[in-house]
Amino acid sequence: MPIIEREILKGELKAIMRQRHKPWADDFLKDNTHLIVPDAKSKRGKWRNMFGNNKPIYVEIGTGKGQFITGMAGQHPDINFIGIELAKSIIVMAGSKVKDAKRDNVLLLHEDAADLNELFAENEISLIYLNFSDPWPKKRHAKRRLTFHTFLSQYQHILQPEGEIVLKTDNQGLFEYSLVSLSQFGLELTEVKLDLHGAEDSENIMTEYEEKFSAKGQQIYRCRAQFS
Amino acid sequence: MPIIEREILKGELKAIMRQRHKPWADDFLKDNTHLIVPDAKSKRGKWRNMFGNNKPIYVEIGTGKGQFITGMAGQHPDINFIGIELAKSIIVMAGSKVKDAKRDNVLLLHEDAADLNELFAENEISLIYLNFSDPWPKKRHAKRRLTFHTFLSQYQHILQPEGEIVLKTDNQGLFEYSLVSLSQFGLELTEVKLDLHGAEDSENIMTEYEEKFSAKGQQIYRCRAQFS
Repeated sequence: MPIIEREILKGELKAIMRQRHKPWADDFLKDNTHLIVPDAKSKRGKWRNMFGNNKPIYVEIGTGKGQFITGMAGQHPDINFIGIELAKSIIVMAGSKVKDAKRDNVLLLHEDAADLNELFAENEISLIYLNFSDPWPKKRHAKRRLTFHTFLSQYQHILQPEGEIVLKTDNQGLFEYSLVSLSQFGLELTEVKLDLHGAEDSENIMTEYEEKFSAKGQQIYRCRAQFS
Repeated sequence: MPIIEREILKGELKAIMRQRHKPWADDFLKDNTHLIVPDAKSKRGKWRNMFGNNKPIYVEIGTGKGQFITGMAGQHPDINFIGIELAKSIIVMAGSKVKDAKRDNVLLLHEDAADLNELFAENEISLIYLNFSDPWPKKRHAKRRLTFHTFLSQYQHILQPEGEIVLKTDNQGLFEYSLVSLSQFGLELTEVKLDLHGAEDSENIMTEYEEKFSAKGQQIYRCRAQFS
């Protein structure tokens, strides 16, 4: 079996295994369409209307269980947040978290972030968070890294001029690669942190993953880059 | 390594370096003017003549005892190297090392690197090494860091178009600062290594400082950036 196919199967298997344990997921999605937006592609170019205001929109790719986006939404009421997560059993947990926190500046998309141009119109977004993306360490998988130039090109399209990318990872290889890739695409680095938690940034909101691995002593990297 | 311990070690190293008054230093300088070039500013724009060939010229700022430049000169016979070092008792040690290794592609300058435009003409240099420069950790001293924009501006002037800067340091703060500063000046990062020795780059030539601190488990950072 070709490697790519095998990788996809592995991913599907994991997703199925995770989903198995959430029989309430479908009901939650049906009952919370105001929060986890169905048919998201049809809202392309209309996200400001969806929020009902003109606040800047920040997108998190790979929202996971929603700790980051819920925390950020509370910390920044003047920003609208959109979280994208492919796994159904995970996004309902994020949805549940946002609901409990009663945030009205968050929307969640149960979508694949592979083609952001299908979800967002040109200049519609102000900032993109890439949190603990899959590092795809093998060289032949470089094109799947979310900082590969084809993805940066998508971000550039949906971001407003001078839009920003903020990346957090615990993976040294992905961070090294990303700094170079961002720079070579013409983005300007405005911040680099090589030990985010050592620097005690009191405003940093941790993802679930970050919390877990940081507690084990794993260094967390962050950078901020701007299109010019 | 705890910061305090590192500071003490650094202090010791400096003390040892200072202690070693070298009564032979003046004689060595007099006897080796073919290697440690006197009146270097008068050679501005004539360095190719000084080497007697048209090979690219790489400059190391802060050559120390010369382990790096001697090793590099052996590894790259097609490159001419110029090492700059202000401390007389140190540059004679570098001179002695180059002499022992019988390298004819190295010149040393007993000079202050504060104004490189006095030493080199426009486009005269191909690459600049910044090895373990003083981190100047206090914000108010930022302008003394060798990656502050005023220095980058000097490097740009003496470097040929698409000239490169290669920086190595064990100082996290200086490395974070430098990545941002290089990027904001418009340089393109072509390499970032966050644990140079962990990555086992067999071509890396260590400075004396690097060897000592790396042996104590200190992480070494390196980046490579190009003017465009």
